[in-house]
Amino acid sequence: MGPGRARGGGHLRTVGVDLGGTKILAAVVEGGRVTEARKRPTPEGGPEAVAAAIVDLVDDLGGAGRLGVGTPGRVAGTDGVVVGSPNMAGWDRPVPLGELLRVGTGLERVAVGNDVNVATLAEQAAGAGRGRSDLLCVFLGTGVGGGLVLDGRLRAGVHGLTGEIGHTTFRPGGRRCGCGLDGHTEAYAGRVAMEAEARRRHASGEPTALVDLAGDGRMKSGVFAKALAVGDAVATALVDEAVEAVAVAIASAVMLLDLDLVVIGGGVADKLGPAFVGRIADEVRSRLFPGSSLEVVPASLGDHAGVVGAALLAEAG
Amino acid sequence: MGPGRARGGGHLRTVGVDLGGTKILAAVVEGGRVTEARKRPTPEGGPEAVAAAIVDLVDDLGGAGRLGVGTPGRVAGTDGVVVGSPNMAGWDRPVPLGELLRVGTGLERVAVGNDVNVATLAEQAAGAGRGRSDLLCVFLGTGVGGGLVLDGRLRAGVHGLTGEIGHTTFRPGGRRCGCGLDGHTEAYAGRVAMEAEARRRHASGEPTALVDLAGDGRMKSGVFAKALAVGDAVATALVDEAVEAVAVAIASAVMLLDLDLVVIGGGVADKLGPAFVGRIADEVRSRLFPGSSLEVVPASLGDHAGVVGAALLAEAG
Repeated sequence: MGPGRARGGGHLRTVGVDLGGTKILAAVVEGGRVTEARKRPTPEGGPEAVAAAIVDLVDDLGGAGRLGVGTPGRVAGTDGVVVGSPNMAGWDRPVPLGELLRVGTGLERVAVGNDVNVATLAEQAAGAGRGRSDLLCVFLGTGVGGGLVLDGRLRAGVHGLTGEIGHTTFRPGGRRCGCGLDGHTEAYAGRVAMEAEARRRHASGEPTALVDLAGDGRMKSGVFAKALAVGDAVATALVDEAVEAVAVAIASAVMLLDLDLVVIGGGVADKLGPAFVGRIADEVRSRLFPGSSLEVVPASLGDHAGVVGAALLAEAG
Repeated sequence: MGPGRARGGGHLRTVGVDLGGTKILAAVVEGGRVTEARKRPTPEGGPEAVAAAIVDLVDDLGGAGRLGVGTPGRVAGTDGVVVGSPNMAGWDRPVPLGELLRVGTGLERVAVGNDVNVATLAEQAAGAGRGRSDLLCVFLGTGVGGGLVLDGRLRAGVHGLTGEIGHTTFRPGGRRCGCGLDGHTEAYAGRVAMEAEARRRHASGEPTALVDLAGDGRMKSGVFAKALAVGDAVATALVDEAVEAVAVAIASAVMLLDLDLVVIGGGVADKLGPAFVGRIADEVRSRLFPGSSLEVVPASLGDHAGVVGAALLAEAG
């Protein structure tokens, strides 16, 4: 797709793109809702291949007048340079994603934001946090991420790294986190960390259905849901611990920031459902002063938070 | 002192007042610096007696054109009503401190703010955080308090309770905090909690000089400093634990908020000195990602932070 083609039939449309480690989702978004969507696996050929795939998806959707992308990693400056997204093949150096997409689409401007931040924007503007000016979003998935809206504005932070609630400390000196530091919330409540602990316990002789249920693949959130449903002891213990870790992190954030709303999303929360979020909510409340007005609620946009937030980012520019 | 008298010789002056549980400090503040100060013990006759004492102090200073007060507890609304300051005799109900002082001084407006928040304002405007737009202040004293400046503005929070870093969780299920909840930072790093633990260990047979050094009085920060200096094992263990607790709380706050400056003040930090703050700084850095630009520095206004901040609050209105 050459310069100018993105303006074809889609000059009034806003397209939001959710760039993930395994798949890319692109959607036409109107008024905070997805009207049409396309997805494909994330190509492994590095940044140029990823940018080309995004351009193709936009083309498939009939073009875009405004384009926003949510990406893993930190987005530096206003020009859409992505830094520190080590889970993407060939992304170990700064990637000028905004420029690649401007060239690819012919658009004058492409908005690029961190995936968790844009999903937080989406939940505030069009999801479970609609109309609220203070909001912590916690996303439980492969890892544990978060975003903060304070006094009506998404907080970026000094380095654009606000919201790393997965790397707050749950147990000082405790389990090693993927980041190399000890005792972090993500080391107890991230899906990858829970899988590693399940396999460790299985290997040391604790009976659990988790490994068989996972088969040859990853131990997805649905595997934990199934094992929980049949009372698997290891799954129960790991989910109990995840609930406690997330609740401690949220309660501390609420004490520090005096929030009245926390929204919980991400694949693990979606699969384990409202009852799981309710358990976290109860555990958080037990750790706050009596009379706290805090609400802890499930995210409402599910898989669409990323594309909706990316579209909002494009429209905000 | 009747209405109008405050306007006497002091109509151009700003007076800041630091209202504490044991003493009241009042000062003329010019350009963020104290030029003249008076203090007296906090009277125990309830809110009216406290207001009268503040009015007398202002009178002693030659009157005020603008008056600001920092008080324990939460300040509700814009009218200076103080809520939840249980450490002050007779303050168990909402106290209309702003109104009492307007009547007492004849001033049209008296600014009232939470003591920790005004001290944070002071450190940002005229102290260790001068010129910085993002700042966490942690005050280590009787308890552990904190204030936050984000994007250049003091954060109040939904209920005016931002900054309760003393009530973030250090050890889930751990030592009971004065607030009734478990494992909070203040239960390990507040002076009152450290004293209680020292007396408990002494009573259970652990040798320590802390109890003798305290004599018949409270185990003040200076007592811990003296015991540390002679290698007292219990004092060393308690201070080590306080350093770890505060460092974990700060590291988690930095992960959540992406800050680059933390200022540490309060009586315990002042008495134990820059080496103590340096130990906290090292411990915090060991809990952050490599390459973090975070600075952890001692507060620079000491006992004057409260009156300077209260004066700033009066001038901001």
